[in-house]
Amino acid sequence: MSEAEVWSSLSDATRIVVVTNETVHDLYAAQLRRMLPVEPDFVHIGDGEQYKTLDSFANIMDSLIAMEHDRSSTLIALGGGVIGDVAGFVAATYQRGIGLVQVPTTLLAQVDSSIGGKTAVNHERGKNLIGAFYQPKLVVIDTQTLSSLPQRVYIEGLAEVVKYGIIRDAEFFIWMEQNVDRLLNRNQTTLAHAVRRSCELKSQIVESDEKESNLRLILNYGHTFGHGIENAEGYGSLLHGEAVAIGMVLAADLSVRMGLLSTSVARRIEHLLQNLELPTRLPKKASIERVFSAMKRDKKTVGKQQRHILVRDIGSVSVETEIEPVDVQETLENRTSH
Amino acid sequence: MSEAEVWSSLSDATRIVVVTNETVHDLYAAQLRRMLPVEPDFVHIGDGEQYKTLDSFANIMDSLIAMEHDRSSTLIALGGGVIGDVAGFVAATYQRGIGLVQVPTTLLAQVDSSIGGKTAVNHERGKNLIGAFYQPKLVVIDTQTLSSLPQRVYIEGLAEVVKYGIIRDAEFFIWMEQNVDRLLNRNQTTLAHAVRRSCELKSQIVESDEKESNLRLILNYGHTFGHGIENAEGYGSLLHGEAVAIGMVLAADLSVRMGLLSTSVARRIEHLLQNLELPTRLPKKASIERVFSAMKRDKKTVGKQQRHILVRDIGSVSVETEIEPVDVQETLENRTSH
Repeated sequence: MSEAEVWSSLSDATRIVVVTNETVHDLYAAQLRRMLPVEPDFVHIGDGEQYKTLDSFANIMDSLIAMEHDRSSTLIALGGGVIGDVAGFVAATYQRGIGLVQVPTTLLAQVDSSIGGKTAVNHERGKNLIGAFYQPKLVVIDTQTLSSLPQRVYIEGLAEVVKYGIIRDAEFFIWMEQNVDRLLNRNQTTLAHAVRRSCELKSQIVESDEKESNLRLILNYGHTFGHGIENAEGYGSLLHGEAVAIGMVLAADLSVRMGLLSTSVARRIEHLLQNLELPTRLPKKASIERVFSAMKRDKKTVGKQQRHILVRDIGSVSVETEIEPVDVQETLENRTSH
Repeated sequence: MSEAEVWSSLSDATRIVVVTNETVHDLYAAQLRRMLPVEPDFVHIGDGEQYKTLDSFANIMDSLIAMEHDRSSTLIALGGGVIGDVAGFVAATYQRGIGLVQVPTTLLAQVDSSIGGKTAVNHERGKNLIGAFYQPKLVVIDTQTLSSLPQRVYIEGLAEVVKYGIIRDAEFFIWMEQNVDRLLNRNQTTLAHAVRRSCELKSQIVESDEKESNLRLILNYGHTFGHGIENAEGYGSLLHGEAVAIGMVLAADLSVRMGLLSTSVARRIEHLLQNLELPTRLPKKASIERVFSAMKRDKKTVGKQQRHILVRDIGSVSVETEIEPVDVQETLENRTSH
């Protein structure tokens, strides 16, 4: 991260509070403090998706109030997607909104959740059911932080990188096919390009549609199935990116079934994900019935109509609302591990 | 309320949920249902400021999720300021925002809280500390609902009506001085004018400044002291409008002390409020120390600088940040009941 950037955006901050967890604090708090114009307060939440709750939200609020932060304070969300989403929602609603800086430290957060202004917490009945749209003043990305990630957490982020290629940029997809080893080895130059291009693509999509009514919907490619899988399996058994990887393959299968996509292109999607060591089949113990009914409950269901982002070619997708439940169900059945 | 208006704004609503409390439900739910294009769901919270909490917020969220409302649902907040603020915050954050219609049924809500897009819940440490700016699609005001209000709850609303005259419209203030009896007797024609003019004035102020940075601050006239009083006395012993009435007189006292306002105009403010049966002195048991320290904690304190809206004349106020604590303290001491 460029010190100049951080400083210039925070020079009007009278006080700063950093929301993070213990793991990330130990790794990066000292580095971050050296860049800030004032000594920040720190608030910790637990490490993991199970802490993306209204309880964590309320605890952070209690801390901010106890520390007597006011409307002119700036909140820095330092960590992965859970931190960014919960702390972002706090910034959106503390005294009706304070300044927010996102400092994502996981690949998933750097290429996805830190961009676009979505903040939220989960509810036991579903993901991201309570939240707000709230734009950060600044997103500071340092790909060096990715070297500390456990391999599985790093790999899940690659699922979203692959997604950008499929929905919007065939050339980027081909570049990934050609750089599988460098991506797996976290080559810094390769990573810098992957993250920068992902951010560019997401920003373009979000800027042309800040309120998720049309174009932004394509970002949900792999997520209609993916959220259903996460809900059915319980958060934690599969990581978000892993569920999305399976969801992207399922959406490609469904696209083939609907006659929109050739089998060979669907195979390329599956192979790239497999080569990046991402799962492409439903877990053995997965209940098709549970996934199916979780998908019906998903907040992206408008009325009773389910939206699917289907693939027409690498770099080209479309939003479909007229998919029959039987086609969804059979697609799920054909992708269960044996 | 005009049926046509309600219908036209809700004609695209596939589902509607009405958030209210039992008291208001019994009075107006049947009338509201007759106007709606679909049979709504109802969610109740407790009646009173003590229910303006994150717990109530979470309970309404649980209900909406259990009822499987999605993003296309519309939420109608039917009731006073507590309902409007809590339900408005729910609408702002349920699945990152759903359609909101405010149907305020108290004078305070009709002339103040339903307009301007402020939503929030209280925290044990202070009022409105957690919330969002969120504009309703529609505000439906029926002054007939005011006839069912207990006298004290009706009267407190007059405090905000008087406020609009003082901060922005001398003619309106004089009209109130001339119509004290009709206001106290809830004459429908008089009420209709009072509510309409108040809404016009608030809308003008809010529209020229949607994010409360400059002009909107004048709406806080009487509230710097008022919130301090409410916080110190505990919610419930004084109604919000009562605390604001005392706060307006205190702010006028402070204006005289600072040499900005003549004693005779300060007396006119005090007299109008007294004639409208509003309190103008701190309660006997009030602790100056508690009020003073609650004011320092108020979220409108920027850094360590307290903002006061001071009066220069009827219809003309200014925002002052350079008031010495000793002047605030002495102003409080001179307004304590003996």
